[in-house]
Amino acid sequence: MRKLLQQAAAAGLEPGALVHIGEKEPKEPRATVIHYGEGRFEEAEIDLAAGCPHIEVDRGVTWINVMGIARQEVLEGLGACFGLHGLVLEDIMNTDQRVKVEDFTDYLYIVVKTIEWQEQTQEVVSEQISLILGSHFVISFQEAEPDVFEPLRQRLASGKARALTMGADYLAYALLDTVVDTCFVALEKVGDEVELMEDEVADDPSTELLQRIHRLKREMIFLRKATWPMREVVGALERRETPLITSAIEPYLRDLYDHTIQVIDSIEALRDITSGMLDIYLSSISNRLNAVMKLLAVISTVFMPLTFIAGIYGMNFHYMPELRSPFGYPIVLCVMVAIAGWMLYVFRRRGWF
Amino acid sequence: MRKLLQQAAAAGLEPGALVHIGEKEPKEPRATVIHYGEGRFEEAEIDLAAGCPHIEVDRGVTWINVMGIARQEVLEGLGACFGLHGLVLEDIMNTDQRVKVEDFTDYLYIVVKTIEWQEQTQEVVSEQISLILGSHFVISFQEAEPDVFEPLRQRLASGKARALTMGADYLAYALLDTVVDTCFVALEKVGDEVELMEDEVADDPSTELLQRIHRLKREMIFLRKATWPMREVVGALERRETPLITSAIEPYLRDLYDHTIQVIDSIEALRDITSGMLDIYLSSISNRLNAVMKLLAVISTVFMPLTFIAGIYGMNFHYMPELRSPFGYPIVLCVMVAIAGWMLYVFRRRGWF
Amino acid sequence: MRKLLQQAAAAGLEPGALVHIGEKEPKEPRATVIHYGEGRFEEAEIDLAAGCPHIEVDRGVTWINVMGIARQEVLEGLGACFGLHGLVLEDIMNTDQRVKVEDFTDYLYIVVKTIEWQEQTQEVVSEQISLILGSHFVISFQEAEPDVFEPLRQRLASGKARALTMGADYLAYALLDTVVDTCFVALEKVGDEVELMEDEVADDPSTELLQRIHRLKREMIFLRKATWPMREVVGALERRETPLITSAIEPYLRDLYDHTIQVIDSIEALRDITSGMLDIYLSSISNRLNAVMKLLAVISTVFMPLTFIAGIYGMNFHYMPELRSPFGYPIVLCVMVAIAGWMLYVFRRRGWF
Amino acid sequence: MRKLLQQAAAAGLEPGALVHIGEKEPKEPRATVIHYGEGRFEEAEIDLAAGCPHIEVDRGVTWINVMGIARQEVLEGLGACFGLHGLVLEDIMNTDQRVKVEDFTDYLYIVVKTIEWQEQTQEVVSEQISLILGSHFVISFQEAEPDVFEPLRQRLASGKARALTMGADYLAYALLDTVVDTCFVALEKVGDEVELMEDEVADDPSTELLQRIHRLKREMIFLRKATWPMREVVGALERRETPLITSAIEPYLRDLYDHTIQVIDSIEALRDITSGMLDIYLSSISNRLNAVMKLLAVISTVFMPLTFIAGIYGMNFHYMPELRSPFGYPIVLCVMVAIAGWMLYVFRRRGWF
Amino acid sequence: MRKLLQQAAAAGLEPGALVHIGEKEPKEPRATVIHYGEGRFEEAEIDLAAGCPHIEVDRGVTWINVMGIARQEVLEGLGACFGLHGLVLEDIMNTDQRVKVEDFTDYLYIVVKTIEWQEQTQEVVSEQISLILGSHFVISFQEAEPDVFEPLRQRLASGKARALTMGADYLAYALLDTVVDTCFVALEKVGDEVELMEDEVADDPSTELLQRIHRLKREMIFLRKATWPMREVVGALERRETPLITSAIEPYLRDLYDHTIQVIDSIEALRDITSGMLDIYLSSISNRLNAVMKLLAVISTVFMPLTFIAGIYGMNFHYMPELRSPFGYPIVLCVMVAIAGWMLYVFRRRGWF
Repeated sequence: MRKLLQQAAAAGLEPGALVHIGEKEPKEPRATVIHYGEGRFEEAEIDLAAGCPHIEVDRGVTWINVMGIARQEVLEGLGACFGLHGLVLEDIMNTDQRVKVEDFTDYLYIVVKTIEWQEQTQEVVSEQISLILGSHFVISFQEAEPDVFEPLRQRLASGKARALTMGADYLAYALLDTVVDTCFVALEKVGDEVELMEDEVADDPSTELLQRIHRLKREMIFLRKATWPMREVVGALERRETPLITSAIEPYLRDLYDHTIQVIDSIEALRDITSGMLDIYLSSISNRLNAVMKLLAVISTVFMPLTFIAGIYGMNFHYMPELRSPFGYPIVLCVMVAIAGWMLYVFRRRGWF
Repeated sequence: MRKLLQQAAAAGLEPGALVHIGEKEPKEPRATVIHYGEGRFEEAEIDLAAGCPHIEVDRGVTWINVMGIARQEVLEGLGACFGLHGLVLEDIMNTDQRVKVEDFTDYLYIVVKTIEWQEQTQEVVSEQISLILGSHFVISFQEAEPDVFEPLRQRLASGKARALTMGADYLAYALLDTVVDTCFVALEKVGDEVELMEDEVADDPSTELLQRIHRLKREMIFLRKATWPMREVVGALERRETPLITSAIEPYLRDLYDHTIQVIDSIEALRDITSGMLDIYLSSISNRLNAVMKLLAVISTVFMPLTFIAGIYGMNFHYMPELRSPFGYPIVLCVMVAIAGWMLYVFRRRGWF
Repeated sequence: MRKLLQQAAAAGLEPGALVHIGEKEPKEPRATVIHYGEGRFEEAEIDLAAGCPHIEVDRGVTWINVMGIARQEVLEGLGACFGLHGLVLEDIMNTDQRVKVEDFTDYLYIVVKTIEWQEQTQEVVSEQISLILGSHFVISFQEAEPDVFEPLRQRLASGKARALTMGADYLAYALLDTVVDTCFVALEKVGDEVELMEDEVADDPSTELLQRIHRLKREMIFLRKATWPMREVVGALERRETPLITSAIEPYLRDLYDHTIQVIDSIEALRDITSGMLDIYLSSISNRLNAVMKLLAVISTVFMPLTFIAGIYGMNFHYMPELRSPFGYPIVLCVMVAIAGWMLYVFRRRGWF
Repeated sequence: MRKLLQQAAAAGLEPGALVHIGEKEPKEPRATVIHYGEGRFEEAEIDLAAGCPHIEVDRGVTWINVMGIARQEVLEGLGACFGLHGLVLEDIMNTDQRVKVEDFTDYLYIVVKTIEWQEQTQEVVSEQISLILGSHFVISFQEAEPDVFEPLRQRLASGKARALTMGADYLAYALLDTVVDTCFVALEKVGDEVELMEDEVADDPSTELLQRIHRLKREMIFLRKATWPMREVVGALERRETPLITSAIEPYLRDLYDHTIQVIDSIEALRDITSGMLDIYLSSISNRLNAVMKLLAVISTVFMPLTFIAGIYGMNFHYMPELRSPFGYPIVLCVMVAIAGWMLYVFRRRGWF
Repeated sequence: MRKLLQQAAAAGLEPGALVHIGEKEPKEPRATVIHYGEGRFEEAEIDLAAGCPHIEVDRGVTWINVMGIARQEVLEGLGACFGLHGLVLEDIMNTDQRVKVEDFTDYLYIVVKTIEWQEQTQEVVSEQISLILGSHFVISFQEAEPDVFEPLRQRLASGKARALTMGADYLAYALLDTVVDTCFVALEKVGDEVELMEDEVADDPSTELLQRIHRLKREMIFLRKATWPMREVVGALERRETPLITSAIEPYLRDLYDHTIQVIDSIEALRDITSGMLDIYLSSISNRLNAVMKLLAVISTVFMPLTFIAGIYGMNFHYMPELRSPFGYPIVLCVMVAIAGWMLYVFRRRGWF
């Protein structure tokens, strides 16, 4: 529930006030600056508090990767360096933003969410990634370690990434693509979980399983809330007439859009399947109830007449001729066996046991 | 039900007739006028019946904050001062308006709703806030105390609010932002309530809980009705080509729009979760029924054969050789124990108890 | 069902053929002509068969209020006087029209429905109102008495209605507003009905109540069918670039539009609540079943072991040492009481009774 | 199921290949040519194989009404006469077309479906009607007898139809109107069927009724599939800027559009009602189960204690003082009657029987 | 589940990296080149690794049909020959693409899916078909044998196909038409399966059937995911202002669009029917439970009173006058028979057995 409703903490404050709202424990920001392009690849850890990081406007692309967003004065410093709007800074710190893209003419501000499935807690965990795309630079903000962009950094360092020959917009695309890929990985794990549940639901419909299904449905609601607006964001980038997005990356954005649609489609499919599981769960319970009732009916139907017959001959009437006959007892026993056998035969034929 | 259907009271009257329709007890209007801008901040309580409040058109912003909307002649006086349309006055008094924005060229008329969750009655209470945004002034109408804009007034008085350096449109934005924030606070409380219910629903599915869920669902319908049009209102403000909205506050309106979407998303998510709870409720009941039936089946299945055997040897046949054997009784007892033991073993293995 | 499907009666006829289709018993048309404007208010009952009613084109507004639509030749006469299209005449007579507005350049043809909740039959009854709005006149057609426009006529007669100073378009608006107001009144009554049912549904979920809920749902389907297109109609009027609608009544149409949306919202909310009642109904039945089964289980679980013990000592074995002991009987009785007491204690602790 | 999925038969063939796909037994085509206009009405049966039928381009309207569509060479001949596209011929023969309108500049090709409710099989049967609307002629294709356009032909012959004074587009409209009217008739019959079921569902919820409801729902799915696109077709005709549709018939098309909407609304309403019946069905079953269980509980609760008491005094203890008392037996009987009476009183008060 | 979520395997890779992702076992690519037009038809198997296939730009159409997509270097070679974008090559190899069409100015890239219903596994299997439509050529990529385009190839070879007289765009249309036809065939089989289940669901509602229904629903989710975007693709082709699509094939594309809509409509209808089956399933189970409970109630209600009476006369009171009467025993037996008979009569009249 917590993650569905976080904004409340900031209610009553000045709009634009810098407050850190987030789930992950805030840490001291750590920043890496990477310059690349024209065959170069330079990487350096920098101290954000020490002044504005250098941006090369005439050649190559600069990528500033910031880990940790909790220190207000650091963000304000960066904001001053790059002329960021106060609301952008607020949104970077407040990790309960909606996925969105905003055009501030000089730069685009993009908010996206990585998705991770935590097997222990059976929960979907998401981290907010903020991207600032300028004409020659990209700044990425992550809440905490681990760095989801590490594989991309390594590809850049290895000198084989396509990004090395393209502009800042391609870098932004590559970062977004990495984020969407986390969704695929998370969804695959959720899919495995669903498959496990599907096997269990008909065999062993326990209340505990029901609660797991319910919890999964809730996580799916959260997933949906996190991924649906992604579609609008990538769609907006694709249409965007800002000069920050060049036509060279249009096919890549189209590809990213398709991936986003696939993520959304998969979530919808998983939702449908999960809803279907509830039907099976309820049917399984009904079936079990049926089985229990059948057993009860069989037992009662077999023993009630027998007990009644025994009761008859337990009566103390003085004149009961059968009681005196030496064959009375065996005949009654035989009749009882016959009745029980016939009834069991009938039930067996009806498939009740 | 009352709050879903209030308009009926005004049926049959002249359209535009000033009738107070509302839940809160009407009170004598009380008004505060605040002048600010260019470093100033002046605040005064005024008597609305004594004539038109002074508006400074050449410098700063004037904010008239009216508490209480029940006195018709006061509203008519204000309406005459500011040239408000008769229907606007009617809408201000009738607190069953739909959330909306209307452009009357000289001023915008905005109707919004604050949301409050009352824990005692488990109900959502809403208050209608009417805003008149002119070129140099904002008039806000609230139904009753407490003043939800008090924190904003204090920020203005403290000299640190951003509003002090901006125009009347920013003030209107700040007021709307305050209203949306009340939704976040209310939703968080509803979320806590839902979480409590979720814990209860599997453990103790009582009819009383069902009715609480149903009541909550009804409150959610009301919440939805109150917040969905908010989206259109803020969206319309964002698009509005009226000169009353300047481009300077566009990012703030965008931010407000995002908040509104988040409120709506959260309500939808809570609705989904509440619906899911009903499924769990029904399943819990079914599970309990199953448990009861299993107990019944176990008891019957164990005791019916035993009682039958006892019945056999309670028969009064003269020739029942077992009855005479000195080992008859202990053997029968042993057989009974064996049957009972075997059955309990079978049920235990099936996990029935 | 009847009112959902009336058109069938006209199938196979010439399109435009004048056939009266309606629920209310047709009556002899009766018409009133009201001239007003420029301080005047003149009212006269006229005989439609006697020729065309006089319309004052140079001053004021003429309102012809026709009660009863069943006489074909009368309608044809009126149609000839005002140059109405044959299909308009057909639509006026056939009261199974969809709510709609049609622009015939010289006049607008508007079809709306009044809504009434009949408490005795628990049914929603609707009456079709046709309006012809020309440049200086309005003709209104009602199916039968009572005249829903009577309050408006009285306001006009009293000389205090705003309509007296405005054009024919305002009169049309005022008539539409009256029609929408009937919906509010009907919805309030339906709301009261729903509230009553809500109290009943958890306490006494009888089959009869279920059928009342079902009937109410069906009435709601009908209500929805009657009110949804209202939204389009008023929206179309608001947008209409016909000179018949002047800009002076734009705010009133906007207000009317809001009222229409509120009617629709309320119907949707009532639908949701009614659907929710079905869930409660089913849960109540399940809960009762549970209660019955628990009673059965308690009774069986308590008495089966006791009866079994009694059965044991009812066996006729010759060698049963307990039977001879003078304390056998009281001890067995004590054991029975102990077993029963313990079981009742267990069930009480589980909250079964 | 068959009628939902017919296209498969043509899979793998050349697109545009003329294959007859349909439910009705194909028959030899039979064609009637009707010339009318300027006071004339001429009718003749013609042999399509004998050459192109004569079309009067300079005066009046020609209507060629073809019954039977199974003979490929006949259709190809007609297609050559009127310059019809190969795909049009294919679509005429293949009666599994979607309802649609296509503009081929020289002519419009319209596909619609008549609806008929067959009471014996409880099924909706539909027939595909293809219309070719040229500037002076209309060609209508029906699958088989009976001719649904017979009433229209008779009105034309009687000299009283409005069509006689209007163009080919009005004839096409009149044909479409006839088709929509078949829907009204069919829906009324379905409505009667639904009403019958509604009475039955609470009284006698048999499995057979459930299957009838299910079958009806399936027919409704089919009905919906057949009528929804009708809306687009008539809407497209209304908007169409083709010179084949003149402004004179615009009000008629608008009327037809309204009728189409009413058909669709009625189907939706019937669907809602049918879905509601399922709820009642399930509730009725639950109620019956409750009644059965209550009976069982009453019986068990009354007789178990009594049988237990009888069991007590059936024990063979030597020292049971009550057994010797001459009042033991009557007292025990009285106690039993008292217990049974008290229990029955309690159950009666709870309303269990 | 696997086929819903395949993309994960490519997460973390360079966008555009050529990785084969697919279900079918990759095979060595095999390619056929067909030249036709102007009365010619030439066909040859070629070795893709040996260089660029010859395209005749000045006359006729060239169709390159590639079977097998797993060899990266082969695809890269082809991509270089025809100037295909890297992302296109990636999409061809990765068979988890969404159905889509992309315009690369010089060529269109179209991704579609064939559908096949595998009766043994009760699963829908789909194969990705990629089409490259240039001005004089079409390249089609299939994952594996069998060649779904074989019938089309044979029609071309026979010299009777319409494609022989038309351009490359018609060939692309014919290929798409073939793909849509596979859907019809698959849907017909699914429809048969649904019909089978429908017969079974009321007669024998086993858990195994429930799981088959659930599996079918899941397959339908998959089907929907595969076919919905088809609509957009064909719609986009129809609208496309690219010179690659000539106006000559517009009617064919319209026809294809209609077929696509029919496929989608049928899937929706099948979904509705399948959902309806679940309702019947649950009702059947409830009905059976009812039947079981009725039996139990009948048995208990008949035998409990009888056993009680027998218990009465099994009591050992010394003074029980009935016991001594010589008619006691036969009278009690008669009373028992009378009670049993009366109860059975009552139950029979209620229709309980």
